[in-house]
Amino acid sequence: MVRFLVLYPPPTDVEAFEKHYFEVHVPLAKRLPGLRRYTVSRNPARVRGPQPCYLMAELDWDDMDSLRRAFASPLGQETARDADKLAGWCPAIQSIIFELEEL
Amino acid sequence: MVRFLVLYPPPTDVEAFEKHYFEVHVPLAKRLPGLRRYTVSRNPARVRGPQPCYLMAELDWDDMDSLRRAFASPLGQETARDADKLAGWCPAIQSIIFELEEL
Repeated sequence: MVRFLVLYPPPTDVEAFEKHYFEVHVPLAKRLPGLRRYTVSRNPARVRGPQPCYLMAELDWDDMDSLRRAFASPLGQETARDADKLAGWCPAIQSIIFELEEL
Repeated sequence: MVRFLVLYPPPTDVEAFEKHYFEVHVPLAKRLPGLRRYTVSRNPARVRGPQPCYLMAELDWDDMDSLRRAFASPLGQETARDADKLAGWCPAIQSIIFELEEL
């Protein structure tokens, strides 16, 4: 399984960010081809590290090829452009793609 | 489900970090009470954000109470002390606890 993790720092305008994220971004991203699971986490609690986190999202695909196909699709490109809008409220967004290895 | 995420930046001594992580830390953490799943990810690919990431770990529990009991247990405290050793090689470790909400 391959996961795309996004860490959103506290937005400059919480109300506008929330509205755009849940009313525009989520409906777009949920239609990405091959997406197996999409979870968000409100009020994440930082244990270590300097950067506060407001919202997290994790999107799962079966494998790296499926994720790449989703990101390269027209809908993937539209979702990426929409993520640029979210970055207007959260300039220090962190996002990472990683493959899960079960221990 | 509740998840504990750890992001390890590139360690100052990769060999010593790897040896300690996989030979000491993982066997300790795998025994934490109530742990449902423990995955690691080598070579995570950063999409956005300034901080490079060397290794990621995600540990899952059924709920926040189960995670809190695990962290408060003698083994949880031993694992936390051991994480301080890992922080010697990776001072800028980020870790976050969050509850998953399926979309």
